[in-house]
Amino acid sequence: MSLTFRLDATDAAARAGTITTPHGDIRTPAFMPVGTQATVKGLTPEMVRDAGAQILLGNTYHLALRPGDELVRDMGGLHRFMNWSGPILTDSGGYQVFSLAGQRTVTDHGATFKSHLDGSPLELTPERAVDIQQNLGSDIAMVLDECPPADAPPGVVRNAVRRSLLWAERCKSHHTRPDQSLFAIVQGGLNVELRAESAGPLVALDFPGYALGGFSVGESPEAMHAVLPACAALLPAHKPRYLMGVGRPQDLLAGVAAGIDMFDCVMPTRSGRNALAFTSTGSVKLRNARHRRDPAPLDVQCGCYCCANYSRAYLHHLFAAEEMLGPTLLSLHNLAFYLKLMADARTAITAGGFEQFKNETLVKFSPTSPDSTTS
Amino acid sequence: MSLTFRLDATDAAARAGTITTPHGDIRTPAFMPVGTQATVKGLTPEMVRDAGAQILLGNTYHLALRPGDELVRDMGGLHRFMNWSGPILTDSGGYQVFSLAGQRTVTDHGATFKSHLDGSPLELTPERAVDIQQNLGSDIAMVLDECPPADAPPGVVRNAVRRSLLWAERCKSHHTRPDQSLFAIVQGGLNVELRAESAGPLVALDFPGYALGGFSVGESPEAMHAVLPACAALLPAHKPRYLMGVGRPQDLLAGVAAGIDMFDCVMPTRSGRNALAFTSTGSVKLRNARHRRDPAPLDVQCGCYCCANYSRAYLHHLFAAEEMLGPTLLSLHNLAFYLKLMADARTAITAGGFEQFKNETLVKFSPTSPDSTTS
Repeated sequence: MSLTFRLDATDAAARAGTITTPHGDIRTPAFMPVGTQATVKGLTPEMVRDAGAQILLGNTYHLALRPGDELVRDMGGLHRFMNWSGPILTDSGGYQVFSLAGQRTVTDHGATFKSHLDGSPLELTPERAVDIQQNLGSDIAMVLDECPPADAPPGVVRNAVRRSLLWAERCKSHHTRPDQSLFAIVQGGLNVELRAESAGPLVALDFPGYALGGFSVGESPEAMHAVLPACAALLPAHKPRYLMGVGRPQDLLAGVAAGIDMFDCVMPTRSGRNALAFTSTGSVKLRNARHRRDPAPLDVQCGCYCCANYSRAYLHHLFAAEEMLGPTLLSLHNLAFYLKLMADARTAITAGGFEQFKNETLVKFSPTSPDSTTS
Repeated sequence: MSLTFRLDATDAAARAGTITTPHGDIRTPAFMPVGTQATVKGLTPEMVRDAGAQILLGNTYHLALRPGDELVRDMGGLHRFMNWSGPILTDSGGYQVFSLAGQRTVTDHGATFKSHLDGSPLELTPERAVDIQQNLGSDIAMVLDECPPADAPPGVVRNAVRRSLLWAERCKSHHTRPDQSLFAIVQGGLNVELRAESAGPLVALDFPGYALGGFSVGESPEAMHAVLPACAALLPAHKPRYLMGVGRPQDLLAGVAAGIDMFDCVMPTRSGRNALAFTSTGSVKLRNARHRRDPAPLDVQCGCYCCANYSRAYLHHLFAAEEMLGPTLLSLHNLAFYLKLMADARTAITAGGFEQFKNETLVKFSPTSPDSTTS
């Protein structure tokens, strides 16, 4: 068994667990920083680790296009290539085909599309998605799924459920790498009945972990929050549950409350590159002139490298001067913030106080909080 | 006395010394990484320190314009602002006024010019140059000088010598900060007689250190190398000698051979951002397709973080994918290369074998070396 999951504590639906992988353990709930192109943008692996990351996410679509999954395999696999010795999860490439690629055609066989890099024609089938991920050598691979946008007609969502099951079966049949675990993905949009139709046969196939796909694809956060508890409850309690591509801090807390164990999102690093910080008193825009002479750290409650060593004035200067260190420091801080949020959530779950922790934390992110999104 | 210099060893004209400053010692010959805008581009201070840096250079012109020297002072000085606890040298801003600023007018009073950032009118006098550097709080400040280009007519160079002396006197009179040492700058271009005319009265003024300015301003490296020994010999033997803005590894070795102790140049970091690496077997262009599948480190003889952890294939990928980590890793390696070159030179001087070390090293940078500038 290449992956195990242990439930360490539960608090209502919220869970604290431990996932063991060939590259180390992951305490859940866990946030996975996104290393799309074999690097978490602007950070060394040591910075990511020191910020508290236990597992990274790599993007199958991007890595297959460049530098190529066979090249990564020949260089010793993704861990060695990017110098990250901890666990790695790779997505299946499906989401990127649907969001990035040009002129795509999807049939039950797979997706044909044009590369967003050079327009060259490519094909992604369930078998190819597995081959790529086996070449990358991630600890956790994902099945290829069809991920419709939030405004897709019911028939499209229903067909995506059908096709994603078909593809999951083919991925499972094709998957051979014993040191890699393949997770299934449940689709069905905001329709809990469709989610149940998707989850039922996938659960019967006995995957070692399950993800909820098709969220954060254009629906309102409230709509997602409303169905998350019912959707999470469709997944086996003794296996890891992963909410793909989500989200804001408040979305992570809603996910944890619903019983989700794993999250990934580009938001902390992308926001960091754009001078937007997440802090314990709300979001902060470092380009704002009010920070120009502020000697205080970004977040007095944060112990990360950025907050321990630099002032808001310095961060403001770095962004004004368009210096690379600005995006680096703010990406690092935002990751540390997300990772501490999950660590604190785990502590609260273990102590049986998650609901109170969640409510107290959400107040800080409310639009009426003095710092929130206005500074 | 805020600065002392001790000669630890000499080998012909080459010197190994120790400069003590309020923020620590500097073993010479020393290379100073350039942190123009209060950051060595793309690197944390810890990365710069771990690469072997003992002292950084900050740019008075840039910092006075943005974020402003009074702001830096109010934030606790440049060391605190940028989180660098070691020694810092600041230039006087003269070179940038002559190379970057628009529509400048220079009189004996000072230089009036337009900011390269927003075109706003500004003035740099000897007194203002000192005030700025006292606000920044560097360990070593430089006098304001006039730095003509290599193709300047003899009359312009002669006038720059006269004016630079005038300005040096005014800087010295204006300078009050006891924990900061003010170095003089000798001008005179490639004319050793003019250099002697410049050095004589400056030496009589008894500055704690002396720089050669007006090199690397468009002349050929050979022309500079030819006059360096005579120019260095004009400077007091018991004080630090600094060759400003120089240069390539071979230029540093020529400088050390001539008796220079300190160097600065943007070349290692600028080249690094442009995928050009300095290695023990010559320069290497990481964008070249020959590195795409190369699992070897950039430089097998280098122990830096980049070479210890990453392949040429990964570095090639980072530049192909335009990932920030590429410039970061290559800047770090290039700095480590420059800093090790100076550390190795010091070892060779102490052992009495600098000439042999220099000749063996220069062979590796010759255009006929297999890797040099072609890979």
